Amino acid sequence: MVIGKVVSRVISTRKYDTLQGYKLLVIEPFNGENKEWFVAADTIGAGEGELVLVSFGSAVQHALPQHAPIDAIVVGIVDQEPNIQIKE
Amino acid sequence: MVIGKVVSRVISTRKYDTLQGYKLLVIEPFNGENKEWFVAADTIGAGEGELVLVSFGSAVQHALPQHAPIDAIVVGIVDQEPNIQIKE
Amino acid sequence: MVIGKVVSRVISTRKYDTLQGYKLLVIEPFNGENKEWFVAADTIGAGEGELVLVSFGSAVQHALPQHAPIDAIVVGIVDQEPNIQIKE
Amino acid sequence: MVIGKVVSRVISTRKYDTLQGYKLLVIEPFNGENKEWFVAADTIGAGEGELVLVSFGSAVQHALPQHAPIDAIVVGIVDQEPNIQIKE
Amino acid sequence: MVIGKVVSRVISTRKYDTLQGYKLLVIEPFNGENKEWFVAADTIGAGEGELVLVSFGSAVQHALPQHAPIDAIVVGIVDQEPNIQIKE
Repeated sequence: MVIGKVVSRVISTRKYDTLQGYKLLVIEPFNGENKEWFVAADTIGAGEGELVLVSFGSAVQHALPQHAPIDAIVVGIVDQEPNIQIKE
Repeated sequence: MVIGKVVSRVISTRKYDTLQGYKLLVIEPFNGENKEWFVAADTIGAGEGELVLVSFGSAVQHALPQHAPIDAIVVGIVDQEPNIQIKE
Repeated sequence: MVIGKVVSRVISTRKYDTLQGYKLLVIEPFNGENKEWFVAADTIGAGEGELVLVSFGSAVQHALPQHAPIDAIVVGIVDQEPNIQIKE
Repeated sequence: MVIGKVVSRVISTRKYDTLQGYKLLVIEPFNGENKEWFVAADTIGAGEGELVLVSFGSAVQHALPQHAPIDAIVVGIVDQEPNIQIKE
Repeated sequence: MVIGKVVSRVISTRKYDTLQGYKLLVIEPFNGENKEWFVAADTIGAGEGELVLVSFGSAVQHALPQHAPIDAIVVGIVDQEPNIQIKE
């Protein structure tokens, strides 16, 4: 999983029916060097600027009430920035 | 998921039967630094230049009427460029 | 999926039984910057120098007559180089 | 799998029910150049500073008593730093 | 799949029961630029210095007698270095 910050929302009117009802969020990875944002579905109600924990891949289906073509989902809101001192 | 722009189409005459009927699109990632385009199947009817939302991996199968060896699919057309201000 | 060029063949005498009968090809990604070649199974009969479409991950199993520990497979021969003009 | 060092813990109060009971650890990859830390679940009881072996993707589910949206898990504690001399 | 060279062995005393009996190998990717080694399980009996073919992800399970949280496995020993001339 990765920790990321909610940056904005993606609006898509024409999409698969099974994506209806999911908020689609642009997430910026929190871990320093990687600036490649991605899109994750959210059902928890994460707000802009919040730090979230995101799960990827087949694990996502275990967070959905029914299967959908979603490959990234917010699985938690992070209470506070983890204290990380990585080697440089 | 990632947001990308439809760049062109891939024509493949000799291919697996289960790929018949899918448009195969070259997608350029929209998120800045990554210029590694990839190929995704499309059933929504995305046109060149449009911004699309693409799902990868096992989630793709949940968008197909029957299983096929496809690992990336367009799951939505994005209404407008997301407003993204990433840290530099 | 990615488009790649068939570069050479991998010979492996000692291998899993379920890999018997698959040609194993070294594939060089076609999309510019990425020079990290990989190995994909082939049942279509792709020849050296040909451009092929390769699928990865769990989708591969949907191209096999029976399950095997293969994570990349040639799913089509590309008719001609896609016309790609990526932002620089 | 990758070997990583446990750096800290992630606290998330609002999260999926199926994540309850898992320790969520920030893991720093041990293999040199990659500084992109990630989050993995732990049920073994890995402590800060310990070297652990982490598995990703669908394999994670085979380590869980019931399915959960977890895509990385500590599957072992590494006894000592592997002796690695990689080409430069 | 990727081709890699067996560099050393990983010893882990505390680990999931379902990992018992697998040799855990440090593998260095053979394809030039990528120096990020990883860990793969082995049941074929690959020795240090040998070139091996490694499969990742859900495909791994199809090489195991029973499910286990393993995401990379040696599926073959490569007879000789593939003859690769990649564009520079």
